[in-house]
Amino acid sequence: MSFEIWPYTTPGIPDNFFFTGGVPLTKEEVRCLALCKARLKKDSVVYDIGSGTGSLALESALLAGEGMVYAVEKDGRALVALAENIRRFGAGNVVVVAGEAPEVLSGLPPADRVFIGGSGGRFEDILRAVSSKLKDKGRLVATAVTVETTAAAVKMLPLLGFAGVEVVMVTVARVKRAGRAGVWAGANPVCIIAGEKSGGCMDGENNQ
Amino acid sequence: MSFEIWPYTTPGIPDNFFFTGGVPLTKEEVRCLALCKARLKKDSVVYDIGSGTGSLALESALLAGEGMVYAVEKDGRALVALAENIRRFGAGNVVVVAGEAPEVLSGLPPADRVFIGGSGGRFEDILRAVSSKLKDKGRLVATAVTVETTAAAVKMLPLLGFAGVEVVMVTVARVKRAGRAGVWAGANPVCIIAGEKSGGCMDGENNQ
Amino acid sequence: MSFEIWPYTTPGIPDNFFFTGGVPLTKEEVRCLALCKARLKKDSVVYDIGSGTGSLALESALLAGEGMVYAVEKDGRALVALAENIRRFGAGNVVVVAGEAPEVLSGLPPADRVFIGGSGGRFEDILRAVSSKLKDKGRLVATAVTVETTAAAVKMLPLLGFAGVEVVMVTVARVKRAGRAGVWAGANPVCIIAGEKSGGCMDGENNQ
Amino acid sequence: MSFEIWPYTTPGIPDNFFFTGGVPLTKEEVRCLALCKARLKKDSVVYDIGSGTGSLALESALLAGEGMVYAVEKDGRALVALAENIRRFGAGNVVVVAGEAPEVLSGLPPADRVFIGGSGGRFEDILRAVSSKLKDKGRLVATAVTVETTAAAVKMLPLLGFAGVEVVMVTVARVKRAGRAGVWAGANPVCIIAGEKSGGCMDGENNQ
Repeated sequence: MSFEIWPYTTPGIPDNFFFTGGVPLTKEEVRCLALCKARLKKDSVVYDIGSGTGSLALESALLAGEGMVYAVEKDGRALVALAENIRRFGAGNVVVVAGEAPEVLSGLPPADRVFIGGSGGRFEDILRAVSSKLKDKGRLVATAVTVETTAAAVKMLPLLGFAGVEVVMVTVARVKRAGRAGVWAGANPVCIIAGEKSGGCMDGENNQ
Repeated sequence: MSFEIWPYTTPGIPDNFFFTGGVPLTKEEVRCLALCKARLKKDSVVYDIGSGTGSLALESALLAGEGMVYAVEKDGRALVALAENIRRFGAGNVVVVAGEAPEVLSGLPPADRVFIGGSGGRFEDILRAVSSKLKDKGRLVATAVTVETTAAAVKMLPLLGFAGVEVVMVTVARVKRAGRAGVWAGANPVCIIAGEKSGGCMDGENNQ
Repeated sequence: MSFEIWPYTTPGIPDNFFFTGGVPLTKEEVRCLALCKARLKKDSVVYDIGSGTGSLALESALLAGEGMVYAVEKDGRALVALAENIRRFGAGNVVVVAGEAPEVLSGLPPADRVFIGGSGGRFEDILRAVSSKLKDKGRLVATAVTVETTAAAVKMLPLLGFAGVEVVMVTVARVKRAGRAGVWAGANPVCIIAGEKSGGCMDGENNQ
Repeated sequence: MSFEIWPYTTPGIPDNFFFTGGVPLTKEEVRCLALCKARLKKDSVVYDIGSGTGSLALESALLAGEGMVYAVEKDGRALVALAENIRRFGAGNVVVVAGEAPEVLSGLPPADRVFIGGSGGRFEDILRAVSSKLKDKGRLVATAVTVETTAAAVKMLPLLGFAGVEVVMVTVARVKRAGRAGVWAGANPVCIIAGEKSGGCMDGENNQ
């Protein structure tokens, strides 16, 4: 991976470094916080489910330079953006997994860290599958932009045996210049849900 | 520095890892974003002005493990918390500078990165001093909790020759458990102002 | 009702006009927006379920001066605050209904407008009961502070035959003076869910 | 004024009731809170400076049905929208003042309430002029979308002899349907600054 593009030890690659081709991008500040909540290690095996343009995958690849990142994406246009960004960053440790979660997860090696950014309406199924692929003490971070996903995550994570679950909603406003004045421009609030897989319960069946 | 406490490549040490002794702490999410906006390198020389409990200084010391962090603080109680946290994290590359900015800055080596977290009402003076201590292409990140500091930063940074100035306001809400329900608890909004020192103008005099 | 205390045509009685006795109060800005979303008429029959200190009930009583407000509350301490506030405002058109919703609703006359501020964990039951007590074209406004209530409202209102459902989350920060500086102090975000009962479907059974 | 369009005692006319012609509109929730902070009376004389599409002016005209509203606007396109909305609502107590504040204010009768929504970069001049046109105990409400206007209002209002100054920042997010999911869509944060003219100091000169 070329560190010439991002020679820093901190995440936070500006949005305009990524090619999007019209595909939604996890915005810089939300991306930073998702990465921080994931607590990556240099050799982490990471899934990025619903990878989109791959911005989370690529930042993860930098921060886990001795690890491997599996970027799962089913949409054709997003796959094009993802490939272009991998090329642009010269990332050698990002594997594109073209297909739909949770099905395609079964063939992947166990994960240390999992991001769920998009779920195509199958959030609960994906959560269950992820729960069984995550190693003990592995961490899950979901970013939710809907009422339903937030509620499902809040309900399901404890049932699936995740410990230390935290849920934060982040609202960012940015000053845009309008002549001499700086106008506040709001962004959409995003919920970040994080938790650590604890040894006890894997599938939630016994917890309900 | 002992990596046993925080063996991760990402920032985001939970607030409760730090001893505060009643001194205000830069909360985890705001701290993460300030660190990300700073774009630290492994050998950065960092000032943390108004260091308080030192949470930003300690995270910086981890991310710039071959660099040096100068934690500037004048309040006695904060200095006690700062010392305790340095001890707790076993940080060998944090230097406590007991005294008031901007005066104490004059004796420090030039900086690659500067955080301004507290200014004791002398924000503009500190900004000017920092501007002359920052190396070319160095980065400044200020966290502002008041209307006045935000406005001063927005006005002054371009005048002092900073380029790529960005200003974001971050509002975080966190779900707290209340019985079976998850109640949204809001935190205070914080403005993060970042910019890069460009070669041209140092003191803003010629820019006005 | 004495208009000497609040001689205005707009809602927005400051929080400190109300006696609370430690009971949570719907804060001024959220209260204003809830009242606005309710679209009160001068002769509206209003339920205020989970009335607490009665701030919404009393503002409603002013705005619906020829109507009647039923303030439903089960908690003893809140009932004391409610009674004190009715006395303080000299409100002749507020009826205290001491008891628990949905049971106590059955004896009340049909409603034009219903606020649900607190539900004691029985939100869905209350929604169903309210749906059958609301007159056609009547309006429901719920204020939700939890992930669960927001999700339940978003899901249930369309099923119960409400039209024009809207959901807004309101985050208010207020400048507090700290010496010469104005510090931003955040409040908890609150979701306001509003809808109008349409003639078609009453119980949602046929809608699913 | 025709009450057939808005037969309610509460403000909160939906945004889509107004013709905009591309002119920015004060959004429903911010408008409601500005009206509430103004504490209108039924016979208030109101200025709406920088009236734009006139949404605040028209709501004021309803709530101050025996009063008079002066809608001050200089932009030609906004004046067209304003005229159309006055016609649409059949408002007989809104006077359009085509021209620029503060100059055009001198010819108007003293005001009980003043809104400042737009200032064309002349906010401080307008504040001073408004201060001398407001009756004693009159109320000023400014809505600010920029860092600079918020800071100017926070600084100037006390200097100009306003009492009970409060500053709130309101951030609204709204659920938008996207298929079966409800996605949170953020709006721009707006600051609302309100204060009451007290008898003492008129121009701030003696206060500094």
